[in-house]
Amino acid sequence: MVLKTVEWKNNKVVMIDQTKLPNELVFVEFDDFNQVADAIKNLVVRGAPAIGVSGAFGLALAVLQSDAETKQDLISYLENARKILFETRPTAINLGWGLNKIMDVAKHCNSIQEIKESVIAEAKKMAEDDIEINKTMGKNGSVLFDNNDTIMTHCNAGALATVAYGTALGVIRATKESGKQVKVIATETRPIQQGSRLTAFELQHDGFDVSLIPDTAVGYSMANGLVNKVVVGADRIVKTGHVFNKIGTYQVATMAKQHGIPFYVAAPLSTIDLKSKADEVIIEMRKGSEVTGIGDKKTAPDDVNVINPAFDMTPPELITGIITEKGVVSSPYEESIQKLFDENN
Amino acid sequence: MVLKTVEWKNNKVVMIDQTKLPNELVFVEFDDFNQVADAIKNLVVRGAPAIGVSGAFGLALAVLQSDAETKQDLISYLENARKILFETRPTAINLGWGLNKIMDVAKHCNSIQEIKESVIAEAKKMAEDDIEINKTMGKNGSVLFDNNDTIMTHCNAGALATVAYGTALGVIRATKESGKQVKVIATETRPIQQGSRLTAFELQHDGFDVSLIPDTAVGYSMANGLVNKVVVGADRIVKTGHVFNKIGTYQVATMAKQHGIPFYVAAPLSTIDLKSKADEVIIEMRKGSEVTGIGDKKTAPDDVNVINPAFDMTPPELITGIITEKGVVSSPYEESIQKLFDENN
Repeated sequence: MVLKTVEWKNNKVVMIDQTKLPNELVFVEFDDFNQVADAIKNLVVRGAPAIGVSGAFGLALAVLQSDAETKQDLISYLENARKILFETRPTAINLGWGLNKIMDVAKHCNSIQEIKESVIAEAKKMAEDDIEINKTMGKNGSVLFDNNDTIMTHCNAGALATVAYGTALGVIRATKESGKQVKVIATETRPIQQGSRLTAFELQHDGFDVSLIPDTAVGYSMANGLVNKVVVGADRIVKTGHVFNKIGTYQVATMAKQHGIPFYVAAPLSTIDLKSKADEVIIEMRKGSEVTGIGDKKTAPDDVNVINPAFDMTPPELITGIITEKGVVSSPYEESIQKLFDENN
Repeated sequence: MVLKTVEWKNNKVVMIDQTKLPNELVFVEFDDFNQVADAIKNLVVRGAPAIGVSGAFGLALAVLQSDAETKQDLISYLENARKILFETRPTAINLGWGLNKIMDVAKHCNSIQEIKESVIAEAKKMAEDDIEINKTMGKNGSVLFDNNDTIMTHCNAGALATVAYGTALGVIRATKESGKQVKVIATETRPIQQGSRLTAFELQHDGFDVSLIPDTAVGYSMANGLVNKVVVGADRIVKTGHVFNKIGTYQVATMAKQHGIPFYVAAPLSTIDLKSKADEVIIEMRKGSEVTGIGDKKTAPDDVNVINPAFDMTPPELITGIITEKGVVSSPYEESIQKLFDENN
């Protein structure tokens, strides 16, 4: 069975409830965009590309929910839904990208009926495109990896972070599909444990040789020659090549540099933000209870202060290459990233 | 109430059961050295100095347990107990140091009665000395820290890792006692969470301003100017200045170097191993279930491979200084460490 993270089915949004993994594989169904917003906020669905498409599906639900009788009323209704969906998570750029793309489509329609049809069609197309983009990205990245490589990855940039196939894990899947044997080391990725709950789960599900390490063992693994390459996803890449990704990415990249291990980032063009500067990106701070326990298991004293940033910034000098659906780019990033978009026009 | 990690009381060994922290402060009592061995193995007691003294107390129980009628039989009984206690944890040098010191005392006695009295007296003296050494080390280290510093520490090198007061946290306590205001950032320290369960607990218990971070947020905290200095303990230091300490120390040290943040190690001379070379030190590998869940909460799929080293090695070039009860030493360590012992003679 191929894992489908988020899907449009009979005018409903169907998602894997990732908070239940790896203990149970449960699908949840929504017919209200507010439920989708809650699902994004509570990490039922996560991963930059997956929440981009989820946001789009949220707006598709909104067009069905609205009883507006004029185009203008429907657009107002959608604007409100867009705002609620957008405010769930501030760091990943794909959410805003997906929502804006849908709003653009809606605004260019001439009737309520056309809006309903076009918005749903566009959201479904975005989901299909996501898979296609990941497969192309995977193929582009697969040439960077060698037979018998052990590849470290952090967090989950897999099927479960996208509609299917994955970005970083898509590259690993494509490398295997190209006939090379590879092993994977997944970092646990505290505090939410996307590495142990999701990456180890989906790679084991697909028959990969995957080993789990605590986040503290990144340095040990590299110092002891257990890692040949690193590939991670991204939540936002700015034009200077600064990569915003799951907390802990920066230290994985630093350790890789220290040990001469290539460090790659795999992300679609929709993750690249040409407008913002690195110091303008808001890092989401999450609640302390994610760190003071796991589920209902308490592991810290009551009322201890907690610093719990969801993301960190990896500077371009630590990044060997950025793998996209348009090819692999490397330093100087300001130039090479811009080129991706020029060729795109 | 001052936390006393391990104590000799009415011919029994009394310990805080650290596996129950921070939820319950429970004391356990042993009259059998095998129970002490199990307690060391199962992390009821942990921390290099604390297990050194616990080993000595284990032998003190053994002299009371033995019904040997000749000195030679009693020494054989103790040799067997020493072996069982020693094999619980291979990396920290203090365990072997504590056990050997007691065996030396026993072997130099002339009668069974003298062995019993001397072994118990020596073990109790080692516990008292540990506190004194920590206070001296604390004073020596306190001059390295400034008013309003925020100090990061990893794992627990506190009262709970020693008989009382602590090594790294002893330095932080002494800094505060010298009149300087300091804040502490404690890393969670997966997989056993000594940072959240023990360090946050004991610092909060003593009224410190302590913040907890996941291990993944070390880089973020340093990059965002939240940390002025780092101090950690050690399980073993070899004569070249390579420090073996809790898994994750190496990457904390690397990130500190990257950000120009001084990185200190606080450890008594009993932690220094003048004989072994860095590549001869055995790194204890622990069971995977520590990483695949927390307590009975499962966070990874069944049967996933796990790499779970208990310690890693920090090379001397990342270490600003090593704080001991004989003073603070810095690079070149091969020279400065040897001097500590020369002056000692």
